[in-house]
Amino acid sequence: MFSPAVEYARQNQPRFLAELKDLLRIPSVSTLPQHKSDIERAADFLASQMRTIGLEHVEVIKTAGHPLVYADWLHAAGKPTALCYGHYDVQPPDPLNEWTTPPFEPTERNQNLYARGAVDDKGQMFMHLKALESLMKSGAGKLPINVRVLLEGEEEVGGEAIAKYVKENPQKLKADFALVSDTEMYAPDLPTLCVGLRGLVYTEVEARGAKVDLHSGMYGGAAPNPFVALAQIIAKLKDENGRILIPGFYDRVATPSADELRSWKSLPFDEKDYLEHEVGSSELTGEAGYSVAERTWARPTMDVHGMPGGFVGAGAKTVIPAKASAKISMRLVPNQNPEEIFKRFSDYVKSITPRGIQISIRQLSGADPMLIRTDNHYVQAAKDAMKEVFGKDTVFIRSGGSIPVVADFEKNLGIPSVMMGFGLPDDNLHAPNEKFHIPNFYRGIESIIRFFQLLSH
Amino acid sequence: MFSPAVEYARQNQPRFLAELKDLLRIPSVSTLPQHKSDIERAADFLASQMRTIGLEHVEVIKTAGHPLVYADWLHAAGKPTALCYGHYDVQPPDPLNEWTTPPFEPTERNQNLYARGAVDDKGQMFMHLKALESLMKSGAGKLPINVRVLLEGEEEVGGEAIAKYVKENPQKLKADFALVSDTEMYAPDLPTLCVGLRGLVYTEVEARGAKVDLHSGMYGGAAPNPFVALAQIIAKLKDENGRILIPGFYDRVATPSADELRSWKSLPFDEKDYLEHEVGSSELTGEAGYSVAERTWARPTMDVHGMPGGFVGAGAKTVIPAKASAKISMRLVPNQNPEEIFKRFSDYVKSITPRGIQISIRQLSGADPMLIRTDNHYVQAAKDAMKEVFGKDTVFIRSGGSIPVVADFEKNLGIPSVMMGFGLPDDNLHAPNEKFHIPNFYRGIESIIRFFQLLSH
Repeated sequence: MFSPAVEYARQNQPRFLAELKDLLRIPSVSTLPQHKSDIERAADFLASQMRTIGLEHVEVIKTAGHPLVYADWLHAAGKPTALCYGHYDVQPPDPLNEWTTPPFEPTERNQNLYARGAVDDKGQMFMHLKALESLMKSGAGKLPINVRVLLEGEEEVGGEAIAKYVKENPQKLKADFALVSDTEMYAPDLPTLCVGLRGLVYTEVEARGAKVDLHSGMYGGAAPNPFVALAQIIAKLKDENGRILIPGFYDRVATPSADELRSWKSLPFDEKDYLEHEVGSSELTGEAGYSVAERTWARPTMDVHGMPGGFVGAGAKTVIPAKASAKISMRLVPNQNPEEIFKRFSDYVKSITPRGIQISIRQLSGADPMLIRTDNHYVQAAKDAMKEVFGKDTVFIRSGGSIPVVADFEKNLGIPSVMMGFGLPDDNLHAPNEKFHIPNFYRGIESIIRFFQLLSH
Repeated sequence: MFSPAVEYARQNQPRFLAELKDLLRIPSVSTLPQHKSDIERAADFLASQMRTIGLEHVEVIKTAGHPLVYADWLHAAGKPTALCYGHYDVQPPDPLNEWTTPPFEPTERNQNLYARGAVDDKGQMFMHLKALESLMKSGAGKLPINVRVLLEGEEEVGGEAIAKYVKENPQKLKADFALVSDTEMYAPDLPTLCVGLRGLVYTEVEARGAKVDLHSGMYGGAAPNPFVALAQIIAKLKDENGRILIPGFYDRVATPSADELRSWKSLPFDEKDYLEHEVGSSELTGEAGYSVAERTWARPTMDVHGMPGGFVGAGAKTVIPAKASAKISMRLVPNQNPEEIFKRFSDYVKSITPRGIQISIRQLSGADPMLIRTDNHYVQAAKDAMKEVFGKDTVFIRSGGSIPVVADFEKNLGIPSVMMGFGLPDDNLHAPNEKFHIPNFYRGIESIIRFFQLLSH
């Protein structure tokens, strides 16, 4: 005995998949200027879908960057309001020669749909629309709850437009919770809700020594070397046990609850397999005494991403460069504050800068860490809906990454996000042969249908 | 009362300068393949000069790289034999827009001749030929001593051909000493002989962590970071007082003699001026308790030249790169041995490599440190000749750089080098607006004439 909406979704699966393929054929790569018209085409495609479904106030909103797409349906008096978020832009497809089939020609193989954007995030965003269509068409043009949809076209390039829009339009976006489908399931067939995100402080530290590049024969031993200085600084940021040495860095770090830690322990995790097949290094690193889940979800960390400057060609050039930089980021956890951490980082780096070196520190990006209470009504309904669809208990996990818009929703709209994702760990996000497991596309649509239905009671 | 040879040199100054300009017009840039025919043109130009002078066995010697040019005159029975060395290749002239006049159109301004190669080394090498011409033409076709000339065309790209040739032809190059004019005077008008060179071990250290690039959100805290590992390694190579921490690194370091240290103290050196106008950093670095001269001439050091890998573009990319490298060199002093130091370096780096990281270390180039005894007959004669020409006592200095061919001459031919250079500290070697002070060109020719004459007594 399925609800008519689920029945509708099942009967229309082939068409839903065909329409998703149409969307995936549009190469809406946000970082490349030559795809600007494709971005606009994708936005128009989605606006048109929303009109067909019966959503109202459909609007393609111009911004300083790529457009937002908005729609709503607000006639379920007394019922909660969902804000459905997704992004229709995609990563560049390079390297092209590593794709088995072309990135913008969606192809089915082994129950998977291969295409750039299949899972990140066109396929997942499209589940929201197809769930709304199923509810609307099977429910005499009515939805069980109120809904706003807000889609962005520049998530892969920083998401500045949506951050600004959310900040400036809290009334227009008034809702009770956000639904975000841009995360992963912990394992195949395991219904998963993500309830925590790490934050980020990403910096560029520039060290200047001499006023011009110098010959290391003539000046080596008297002139300061910016790379040596940066190495000395970095070595003092983190000890060899993975502990960060910035004074006060851990002051606000919250320990996960005993319940949460217990539930992480029961997740199907094989450390040997993770080491050998995911990371592939000789051993894992990080803080002793913490599990991999804790180290990547609940502990802050520091990484260096690149060190521009000096001579990087083949062979031996004996230059003492006038300057060198390090791209250094820190992942934060609740309740660390990016502004405070950036200040602590800057103060500490300045205090340990070797003599002869002038340092300048810029913050390039940042995001708040997030923790969603699992006892809230919306998370509980999502958990029940997924359990029903998958026939298995839903697990709560966190992600080590950052989704800045989730913090924006909390800060500016005062609402929690339900991060209900249907990707799989081997879906090749940002890499060649990105895919979406087709049964998950359908189960995602059904989970959202049931989620919204449960919220209407 | 000048010697006829000096008289000849003075009368022919305008022609000597004009011929040097002809040589400087040939853009014999050894590193750029498109200048291969210019390299050959320069070699032929010099061979032709040698024939005109009256040298014998003139030969343009083909090598795996650019040609050597050889000639000799060996009829001064019972007199010593000089091996005159120079290089006719030049550095690329970039950045072109910073030249006041074009690099290959030699131009006189303020008693200076501006052109790429003016002082490094075409102008200095040409002094040798013009001194030989003056002696030969004023001496009825005879030289006061025996002479071999050996010029190379790839000094700026590593000098492999000459190293091989010297090793394989010790009999053909048999001589009592080498004359090398590829160094600087300590100050204008101060006759200078360079009697020491630092050696070099130049390495590339590659650190590998994960098998592929990873996302720092997902894996930060568990996956090893090659840049952090390299920073930790570099920070353990040298402490913040400039002391190198490789075990046994200083074992063979010879302290300069009391005489040498005393003479360095009497050199006209203004540390404030050096800091402000040459280095331009906020302060000088290096080992406490040593003068700048000691730190750059008589103490070994370590520098990092570049750290390839990871993300070096603008903005924030959150990658944990699979690998990163560091170009690390050490300058050596007598009696350190490059092979031994490379082994000590490698063993130490391996011993301090953080867990999770696989390290590989390659040596890219090397050179022996050199110290020339100042009490030898040839150095003493050179000192007297320069004093006579400049009217001032000749000073002995060392250089912090490396001239590998000087070690090759000692190792394979068993002869010391007289490093008699006439460049000035502001001659812009390897930079735009390279110049040669024209009075130094003439005084160089006279110094060499007098040097060879003194050796014939």
